[in-house]
Amino acid sequence: MPSPTDALANLPLRDDLVGLHPYGAPQLDVPILLNVNENTFGVPADVHSAIVEAVSAATQGLNRYPDREFTELRANLARYLGHGLGPDQLWAANGSNEVLQQVLQAFGGPGRTAIGFPPTYSMYPLLASGTGTRYVTAPRGAAFSMTPDDTARAVRESGANIVFLCSPNNPTGTALELGVIEAAYDAGEDARAIIVVDEAYGEFAQEGTPSALSLLPGRPRLLVSRTMSKAFALAGARLGYLAAAPEISDALRLVRLPYHLSAITQAAANAALTHADTLLSNVEAIKVQRDRIVAELTSLGLSPAPSDANFVFFSGLEDPRRIWEGLLAAGVLIRDVGIPGSLRVTAGTEEETTVFLSTLRTLL
Amino acid sequence: MPSPTDALANLPLRDDLVGLHPYGAPQLDVPILLNVNENTFGVPADVHSAIVEAVSAATQGLNRYPDREFTELRANLARYLGHGLGPDQLWAANGSNEVLQQVLQAFGGPGRTAIGFPPTYSMYPLLASGTGTRYVTAPRGAAFSMTPDDTARAVRESGANIVFLCSPNNPTGTALELGVIEAAYDAGEDARAIIVVDEAYGEFAQEGTPSALSLLPGRPRLLVSRTMSKAFALAGARLGYLAAAPEISDALRLVRLPYHLSAITQAAANAALTHADTLLSNVEAIKVQRDRIVAELTSLGLSPAPSDANFVFFSGLEDPRRIWEGLLAAGVLIRDVGIPGSLRVTAGTEEETTVFLSTLRTLL
Repeated sequence: MPSPTDALANLPLRDDLVGLHPYGAPQLDVPILLNVNENTFGVPADVHSAIVEAVSAATQGLNRYPDREFTELRANLARYLGHGLGPDQLWAANGSNEVLQQVLQAFGGPGRTAIGFPPTYSMYPLLASGTGTRYVTAPRGAAFSMTPDDTARAVRESGANIVFLCSPNNPTGTALELGVIEAAYDAGEDARAIIVVDEAYGEFAQEGTPSALSLLPGRPRLLVSRTMSKAFALAGARLGYLAAAPEISDALRLVRLPYHLSAITQAAANAALTHADTLLSNVEAIKVQRDRIVAELTSLGLSPAPSDANFVFFSGLEDPRRIWEGLLAAGVLIRDVGIPGSLRVTAGTEEETTVFLSTLRTLL
Repeated sequence: MPSPTDALANLPLRDDLVGLHPYGAPQLDVPILLNVNENTFGVPADVHSAIVEAVSAATQGLNRYPDREFTELRANLARYLGHGLGPDQLWAANGSNEVLQQVLQAFGGPGRTAIGFPPTYSMYPLLASGTGTRYVTAPRGAAFSMTPDDTARAVRESGANIVFLCSPNNPTGTALELGVIEAAYDAGEDARAIIVVDEAYGEFAQEGTPSALSLLPGRPRLLVSRTMSKAFALAGARLGYLAAAPEISDALRLVRLPYHLSAITQAAANAALTHADTLLSNVEAIKVQRDRIVAELTSLGLSPAPSDANFVFFSGLEDPRRIWEGLLAAGVLIRDVGIPGSLRVTAGTEEETTVFLSTLRTLL
């Protein structure tokens, strides 16, 4: 009997997919999971009750198609973000990956180019490929930094139609200065480039770090994407969203699948948004552990990147594979993101962080 | 202040989207909704309880990403469909639209062609366009029929890479003979065409109508898509799926977004599948009303198409617009699918059907 891979070779797969492997971090059964930047605090009891109650009500009408315009959700998201945003400036989909895919379907595609600045979120090139958009990259400076001048030059020289700026950046964790975003926006004027600032980890930024949301007024080509997977502890609910000028929603409506957001997804997200305060207090606790990791790794002689996220990227390891395996053997799964001498760890609860740090200390 | 449409004109929208309008039937607030082929029986009480219980359990772990392989759901879907299918032959996504979009992403795209046989499901050309796939059409015979010979010729002459066969067909309601599907499959041999049989309404077929699932053994290019929106009364939950050779899942894994099915979607679908018996007894009640509509429309001198679905397409109207508006004024919303002299109505409960038929009689 042929293996699935042999059988796949007999199917008329699109040429550029031949030989590829599916995306995805390994889903291993390990006691302490610090590999995919989930919120390890779990869903608080009051949020759980609110979600179950909202889903119960929505299930009464589950035989009907959901509100195609997710009207209540857009209003709740606008209220949560503030910055004077109205519901018509919000858009949502099943995870920010789907939001970004819709942006590429509307503004990318064959004959168009997207640019990213690696190391950065590894889905950008895959989403580009899935929509027939050419993907190009430009280098970062020392310690993965980006400057307004270098960014503007890269945007201009690439002629990119879509610019991905990840801030705080995954996997390195540092947020961009607003000047970099402004420079990218201005440099994209000739190509009418869409500038996407991916703030998936925005809620974890250091005190005083401004959000790109503050740049939206007067910038119709600027899109700021967010997710409920991290700060809202809802990775399993798949809810990503973006804020932008109202006409961006008009564009995305042309490519979204009708009724793409289920009634129970809308209900769950609405319920969680009414409990933002509880969830954001866990964010503060996570930031404490994040800063603790950075401090302790430094004292161990390693080089953690400054982090505005719920994870820490650290370099200075002689044999990261040995460290990764040693941690796994102790029941702690972290992430090897493929950058020499480096690993990435999610900031978890105080207990999880203690196990991670003490195991790492032993291994070093 | 410019309208959103004016503002949209200033954005760098992909060329082939310029001037388009978003898909979607109007969502009106009317007492009797018989326009989008929903299951008007609602969600039975035991199914409601099971869904809420399952979602409550899933919400405990909602801070974690969902099972990317939706293992339990695939097993439950395989068990429900029977026909000797195994879990590795099942695939699911957020509505059958997303399933079909993934099929187009994997096997269609620039330089490839899909074929449909209008009048048929209006999303096929939109999904093709969204994935850069050329969409061509071939005509049907008298009374919207399709024959094996004509279908084979159209498949061969078009050189199509993907063939959409909707059975029972939306909007006309009639199922295809298996011979048409076999002929399309054989005719697609040279182009290695993927044959998609869209059985969204399969559970409503007349007694003795076989499913294309029975043709799967030995046909690795045949895909049978289904949905939980109709027979399972879960339009709001967005769960579509397909059955095919295991290597089809391997192909779709290359284009699906990671974690595309939320943990609560998986939980809700699993819960509903354990109550298939209850839900399928409502299907029988709907089929009684469907057959009643066909009989009464015939006695009114109209020409309903034979229906294997939960709706009836009927012709012979002098002024369908007047009838549609008269029904709406009486609180009954049905669908004008744009075919001269014709309308389409969903089979609802006995009471809804009575109001529809008596209002129509008065209007005629």
